[in-house]
Amino acid sequence: MNEDRKSSLSVIIQGQEYKIIDDKGHNYLRTVAAHVDDIMNKISQAYPQLDSKKIAVLTAINISDEYFQLKHEYDELLKLFEEK
Amino acid sequence: MNEDRKSSLSVIIQGQEYKIIDDKGHNYLRTVAAHVDDIMNKISQAYPQLDSKKIAVLTAINISDEYFQLKHEYDELLKLFEEK
Repeated sequence: MNEDRKSSLSVIIQGQEYKIIDDKGHNYLRTVAAHVDDIMNKISQAYPQLDSKKIAVLTAINISDEYFQLKHEYDELLKLFEEK
Repeated sequence: MNEDRKSSLSVIIQGQEYKIIDDKGHNYLRTVAAHVDDIMNKISQAYPQLDSKKIAVLTAINISDEYFQLKHEYDELLKLFEEK
């Protein structure tokens, strides 16, 4: 039996393995990591001259942008909800 | 006059400059980039043995996790809103 199964998860991003803490169930974290891999692929295809660290930072900026856009939509919906 | 001012923005992340497309106004993208810098700082302090590329990928995973958690909350709120 693998006693680490519940506490850590290996995900592959751009061909490299990352071990991350798994406190929410495997499928959830695989979705989270797959989103990162997807954006990294898109950025590395669009800007093949960039090194992998810059691609990773631009990926983080891209996902941070998605987060803040969604936060804005969430706040707007919450306002509508409270006014309803 | 600086004719590039409206189309690109320089942000500093972990001491390195990144030029990003600025289509939403400077303060918004500075907030987005500052969030990335903040998470990268926390991860690099927690795991000083990791190289900067791995720190950037783990930062992207962390922010992707925040995005999907917020997406779940948004979907729950939307369901409540439609039922209200």
